[in-house]
Amino acid sequence: MAEDMFKEFREHSVAEFFKKNRQMLGFSGKVRSLTMIVHEFTTNSLDACEEACILPEIFVEVKELEGKDHYRMTIKDNGPGIPFSHLGKALGQMLAGTKFHRYIQQRGQQGIGAAACTMFSYVTTGQSTKAKTCYNGKRTIADISIDFKKNKPIITVIEEGPAEETGLEVTSEFKDVRYERSNYGVYEYLRRTALANPHCTITLIEPNDEKTVFPRSIEKNPSKPFEIQPHPLGIGPHDLLEFAKHSKENKRISSFLQNTFARVSAAKVNELKELAQGIDFNKNPEKLTWDEAEEIVKAFSQVKWIAPAMDALVPIGKEQVEASFNNIFKPDVLVIAERKPRVYRGGIPFMIEVGIAYGGGVVEAQKRGEVMRFANKVPLLFDTGGCAITETVKNMDWKRYNLKNFDEEPIVVLINLVSVYVPYTSAGKQAISHEEDVMMEIRNALMEASRAIQKHISGKRKANEMATKRKVVSRYIKQLSSDLAKLTGTDEKMVEKKLEELIDEKYNRGKEEETEVHEQNERIEEENDYEDREEA
Amino acid sequence: MAEDMFKEFREHSVAEFFKKNRQMLGFSGKVRSLTMIVHEFTTNSLDACEEACILPEIFVEVKELEGKDHYRMTIKDNGPGIPFSHLGKALGQMLAGTKFHRYIQQRGQQGIGAAACTMFSYVTTGQSTKAKTCYNGKRTIADISIDFKKNKPIITVIEEGPAEETGLEVTSEFKDVRYERSNYGVYEYLRRTALANPHCTITLIEPNDEKTVFPRSIEKNPSKPFEIQPHPLGIGPHDLLEFAKHSKENKRISSFLQNTFARVSAAKVNELKELAQGIDFNKNPEKLTWDEAEEIVKAFSQVKWIAPAMDALVPIGKEQVEASFNNIFKPDVLVIAERKPRVYRGGIPFMIEVGIAYGGGVVEAQKRGEVMRFANKVPLLFDTGGCAITETVKNMDWKRYNLKNFDEEPIVVLINLVSVYVPYTSAGKQAISHEEDVMMEIRNALMEASRAIQKHISGKRKANEMATKRKVVSRYIKQLSSDLAKLTGTDEKMVEKKLEELIDEKYNRGKEEETEVHEQNERIEEENDYEDREEA
Repeated sequence: MAEDMFKEFREHSVAEFFKKNRQMLGFSGKVRSLTMIVHEFTTNSLDACEEACILPEIFVEVKELEGKDHYRMTIKDNGPGIPFSHLGKALGQMLAGTKFHRYIQQRGQQGIGAAACTMFSYVTTGQSTKAKTCYNGKRTIADISIDFKKNKPIITVIEEGPAEETGLEVTSEFKDVRYERSNYGVYEYLRRTALANPHCTITLIEPNDEKTVFPRSIEKNPSKPFEIQPHPLGIGPHDLLEFAKHSKENKRISSFLQNTFARVSAAKVNELKELAQGIDFNKNPEKLTWDEAEEIVKAFSQVKWIAPAMDALVPIGKEQVEASFNNIFKPDVLVIAERKPRVYRGGIPFMIEVGIAYGGGVVEAQKRGEVMRFANKVPLLFDTGGCAITETVKNMDWKRYNLKNFDEEPIVVLINLVSVYVPYTSAGKQAISHEEDVMMEIRNALMEASRAIQKHISGKRKANEMATKRKVVSRYIKQLSSDLAKLTGTDEKMVEKKLEELIDEKYNRGKEEETEVHEQNERIEEENDYEDREEA
Repeated sequence: MAEDMFKEFREHSVAEFFKKNRQMLGFSGKVRSLTMIVHEFTTNSLDACEEACILPEIFVEVKELEGKDHYRMTIKDNGPGIPFSHLGKALGQMLAGTKFHRYIQQRGQQGIGAAACTMFSYVTTGQSTKAKTCYNGKRTIADISIDFKKNKPIITVIEEGPAEETGLEVTSEFKDVRYERSNYGVYEYLRRTALANPHCTITLIEPNDEKTVFPRSIEKNPSKPFEIQPHPLGIGPHDLLEFAKHSKENKRISSFLQNTFARVSAAKVNELKELAQGIDFNKNPEKLTWDEAEEIVKAFSQVKWIAPAMDALVPIGKEQVEASFNNIFKPDVLVIAERKPRVYRGGIPFMIEVGIAYGGGVVEAQKRGEVMRFANKVPLLFDTGGCAITETVKNMDWKRYNLKNFDEEPIVVLINLVSVYVPYTSAGKQAISHEEDVMMEIRNALMEASRAIQKHISGKRKANEMATKRKVVSRYIKQLSSDLAKLTGTDEKMVEKKLEELIDEKYNRGKEEETEVHEQNERIEEENDYEDREEA
């Protein structure tokens, strides 16, 4: 019996794993699956353009084909293209790419997405994926599919030639998908992408041949995120050993630490030496033991460090969130809170930007308690319930901010998490895991932004109270002026006018306050106290 | 610039992927991480015992060690053990095992869990994992860790010898975890495991040396789930081709179909031939093309099939759910709905069992609108928000069943999804993805079970109304009997007694009704109409 069990023992490739568990990649549900495909390719295109300093132009065509739930998708960009030597792996091998191991803010970070689309196309239609890459003067058109058992690409070149432009164009067929203009569809996905990436022009051709252009509103790429070294506070003993093992160019632990991690100066190494006296900092990092690594990590935690590089992270930006929100909603109040970068898990830099729109056009758009989530400027449309962003918003004590029931208020909240590593809950990258530091920072950002909403609502409420009081008091003006005129012998009209002026003076203050809040479109800039750990 | 980008191109192993993204395996948060470790090993132990027809005895010890958040875990079972030839891969290689490719109800289904624990232990403490396996008369003790770059085990034998018993014992150290007796802790996890697996004895020794035994309440293994062939209705063209490619023993498509898939008889093959006339059913299955596979899949969908084998799925069972609920809560009403098996995605068999406890001890236990989720009898404690089970419960129109606000009612709902493949949203296996068929079936099961709750509540309400009416009417008895006695000249006491009897008769009916509902512990057995597709 037990013998039989182990006859069934097998090894599987990651491609087989995700083929069977494709819902883990976000391929669950027909509408969602189609959106996921667009998501994977547009994020790759935007990353490639950003890295190559090209103003992105992305073209997406969705064409309905014969047969049930059958579509052809074409996604084309003006990025740098992919050299032929890497084309097969980029589109036909899971866990291969330029992003997985780097400490840099990017939209993709797994090296799975594009190959996942090739997989999904093949599994539902039996077709390979056609790719046209124009890279460095050379044009290649090739057919790509996946050897699932080995997780290796199968690539056939169809055409080669010279190229004047650069870029990548991918065409695949899919079944088991559906195009819909819903909140979870491609149109909404691209609209939100455009909102958060104003430097990019996106063209969409829908199955009914309707063409929509989301034009760029800024003619300049945002400042480019750059790769940073890992911060000592984000490093565990295992990471330290891994870095040490692959640190061929450094012959001493002291130089290895300085060259590998951010903010480690010669002076800091001396401090570390004081704290970890049992360790020979002159020995080869390859010979570092686990116990020594633990001791160094402990010393890391006792030294004062400068925070991770702040400018490595590039948010959407206040002006842009403001412009986009005003474009869509024209709300009564609009507040943007852009927080300074912080770290989670000890040393991974991240920052939160929050925008809240309340009232006005939000009422007309019939939006109620809506949360628009982004990670590294990528819209997150799915897995709302399991996302730390949603949970933080829902758990806010909104009553403190004069909002009775978040879900019924005319409020739209935008939250963008920017980081060199986004802690997604699954390979489908649609929800953020429950990192305490991240959640606390979202909470702080929300609390800040909400104060302006509170002021607005209480201003409005006060104005209403004032108006009521004024009405009540005004009832007596007529009688009072007549009585006063008789008692004092003055002119009744004059007394009435004076009384009215008095009331105006007292009860107009509320009105002014409201106007002030109404027009402020307040921006909050707050001292962020992460670094009391400043360098001496 | 673009050249530079592709210098960074790398290939990564699945072990590296999950090492970096360990939150996708459920390793996020200290308490949760510790529970996940126990989860991985106990599910493996239960699966192994079940397959080898051994009554499971599981021993879990959590010991706190020196240093911050530092623990040693020992998990031991009396299962068949693992042969030494497979030990390294079973505990030190991801995507290796006996479960991934099989169509059978099992708790594990990925071949990741155990290696994930070895990974987590190594990454947080630098220690290898110690395993003692007693298999087929042989005892081996070995140290195991993982070569992450290659996703291969590193194994060192420490001791070998003869063994009289069988079983597996694994000991690992972990940091970055925490023991807590909360709703998300090991104690609660094992309590729920015992609840759903009454044939198993679990012993827990907590860090404070407190020993808890959850003893078995049934001295017999439940009927054993068996491996089934895939059902034709659950097969896409790609699956069909994959099966055909590896079908060495079948020389013809006709025999391949009969031997590979459930419910395909010679008569059915003839029906398929009629529907797919362009295909030569005598040709070698290896030569099947995509177009032909599509045609056969289309024919599959046009033939009437018997449903997948019903008895391949083994639920917790009505008696057991009832006994457990009565043990814990002694509720006023207890309803168990066990539905017949159905299929999702066309052909994957699954079934839903639902238990609802309302009032009584639930009030005393201060439980309000609680959902206890299980998949193949494994408790799901985490990722509540992103789970299709939770969402279905929350989206029920509970008001229809006299429940005003689910979250505030004294109600506990148990839902167990049983299937040969559980569609988890991520490798951490804590939430079910949004499969329409599964959600609809959960909904139906809930609706059935809720009717009894409704009856109970409206019975109670009626009884209250009756009692009030009786009180009102009773006020007049005294006066009325005295008046009637005078008018008719009869004895006042006698009239009073008669009137009281009349009232008793009229108003006691309500009381009886309530008692009836109270005692019914209703079980619902419902005709399940999946198979109007019966064989002629």
